[in-house]
Amino acid sequence: MILRLAIVGFGNVGQEFARLLLHKREWLVRDKGLDVEVLAIATRSRGSLMSDRGLDLDRALRCVEGDGTLRDYGPESVDLAPLDIIDNCDADVLVELTTLDIESGQPAIDHITYAMQCRMHAITANKGPIAFAYDRLESTAKSRDVKLRFEGTVMDGAPIFNLAEKTLQGCEVVRLEGILNATSNYVLTEMANGSTMEEAIMETQRRGIAEADPSLDLDGWDASAKITALANVLMGAASTPDRVDRTGIRDVRSDDLLAAVADGKKMKLMARAERKGSEVVTTVAPEAVDSSSLFWAVDGTSSALTISTDLMGDITVLETNPWIAQTAYAVLSDLLLIAEWIRCHGR
Amino acid sequence: MILRLAIVGFGNVGQEFARLLLHKREWLVRDKGLDVEVLAIATRSRGSLMSDRGLDLDRALRCVEGDGTLRDYGPESVDLAPLDIIDNCDADVLVELTTLDIESGQPAIDHITYAMQCRMHAITANKGPIAFAYDRLESTAKSRDVKLRFEGTVMDGAPIFNLAEKTLQGCEVVRLEGILNATSNYVLTEMANGSTMEEAIMETQRRGIAEADPSLDLDGWDASAKITALANVLMGAASTPDRVDRTGIRDVRSDDLLAAVADGKKMKLMARAERKGSEVVTTVAPEAVDSSSLFWAVDGTSSALTISTDLMGDITVLETNPWIAQTAYAVLSDLLLIAEWIRCHGR
Repeated sequence: MILRLAIVGFGNVGQEFARLLLHKREWLVRDKGLDVEVLAIATRSRGSLMSDRGLDLDRALRCVEGDGTLRDYGPESVDLAPLDIIDNCDADVLVELTTLDIESGQPAIDHITYAMQCRMHAITANKGPIAFAYDRLESTAKSRDVKLRFEGTVMDGAPIFNLAEKTLQGCEVVRLEGILNATSNYVLTEMANGSTMEEAIMETQRRGIAEADPSLDLDGWDASAKITALANVLMGAASTPDRVDRTGIRDVRSDDLLAAVADGKKMKLMARAERKGSEVVTTVAPEAVDSSSLFWAVDGTSSALTISTDLMGDITVLETNPWIAQTAYAVLSDLLLIAEWIRCHGR
Repeated sequence: MILRLAIVGFGNVGQEFARLLLHKREWLVRDKGLDVEVLAIATRSRGSLMSDRGLDLDRALRCVEGDGTLRDYGPESVDLAPLDIIDNCDADVLVELTTLDIESGQPAIDHITYAMQCRMHAITANKGPIAFAYDRLESTAKSRDVKLRFEGTVMDGAPIFNLAEKTLQGCEVVRLEGILNATSNYVLTEMANGSTMEEAIMETQRRGIAEADPSLDLDGWDASAKITALANVLMGAASTPDRVDRTGIRDVRSDDLLAAVADGKKMKLMARAERKGSEVVTTVAPEAVDSSSLFWAVDGTSSALTISTDLMGDITVLETNPWIAQTAYAVLSDLLLIAEWIRCHGR
């Protein structure tokens, strides 16, 4: 089977996904009978590429690793915006990896909506669409008989959404609890080791964990978007990130942390979703955990989520110090599930 | 779609699975379009039932809850051994839940093999077949174009095998590490709290965690069978439990445990599988872990497994204090994946 992709957004994750496709090309053909062609790569500021016969990912990567743009690729270089690319290219699957506006979930929501209206399946690693517009997107997907997948939006490639869909069928999720933001967890870990908040933040920036503006992490916005995405998909919450009762880690002081350590505790930015009557209540706040907690050993950039269910009790998934390749893997794992779905249901 | 089952073995797990089928009957029909009929229940000592029109699970449960046998059920009560039942009943799926002989994996291996030769799909919660004969069973399954599933064999219903198959496609598993035996973990936890080994073992028996003869747990046999099953399926080890380098917890003394506690450590019975050249080396042994370990907080009857992969790094799954309903859920989740497979591939 041939599966044709349009990739929108070609930053770190997009490039890493292209490398992964090259690395796994042989395996995809041999073990999965899957020939993946990339027909288009669209970006807002680095130029765009489109070709009916498939792009050379090696060449695209060399271009962008060179001058940071796709403009020297060749005649496939086009001057079209992402929506025009989606409109003009005959792809089966949109891979949405643009930079997110956390306050609106755009432009990812528009890209995905438009692609699905054009009967493309969609994969995104952007939490925004799932946090802000999951119900609407899911209903568009259903009406067009396409799949929307988003494993990379929470805990990178660690299986959460696909795990729940494929391995916890028939279970009702009654509660979610986790450490979902790498930057704040890293900062709290370093502060407990004696760093100031400023030093710890600088270190996350140096390591490329935090955004240039780390406010979204430190103020709990990122964790709020993630717990909302989880609550929407796994608990039918139909909520948005602004409805999270949110406290970030700005006001956690080194003294508080060291006092917690002396008391045998650690501070963690915990995100929770819990069913209360017909509502799903979501919270993000720092709290002290002791060593009997499964979250105790989740330090640095690691993350963790406990899914509490009616039939299967509590299942906890931990991801240890992920790197960007794991978000790229999430996109690949979504792609494989879409391929399975197409095989079973037809295009 | 109608899916017809033959259940072999009707002890605690079999009865719990029957209750779960009754509890989920409406959901199965409404959400999954799945009408599950049980055509036969076979046991070695409690009698057997067979009916082309489907059995009344409520009545079967009342029978066995009454005098412990199925003999008063009615005219569907038959005097046939499990293999005869498999031979004579027109089921789509064998559900294998007999008591295991840990040293051979029998009679489960024979039941499953025979059923698959009769072109039935098979589900088992018995680790024996997967630990002793996975390659052979898998090759029978392939040759007959049926599915063999076994989520309940390790960590009850916590998604491990289905997780790897459905959400970690394309990843190579390079290492496995976990706490896989509930009884020994419970005993070590209680001993660290001041119990003697004898007291702790009696408590596991009182709670129905350990077998009447807990040797299989304490000598590391159960953990060895489980790490072998995992290594066979996830790492292609083609091994058997007797090839595990195995040390149980018999020689762990209360003094050692209390000394470990004083030193800020806990003793855990760790099971490991690791690729060394073309071999997969498996070990089971007690060892001290400190609070920086993800296994630190895995106490009592909880269990945990870290799956180390090339593309997705380390993923850890923890199951908190499971009960028998979770093994029954594992069988249901396997059944749902088989139903999906049949829908996609035909019977």
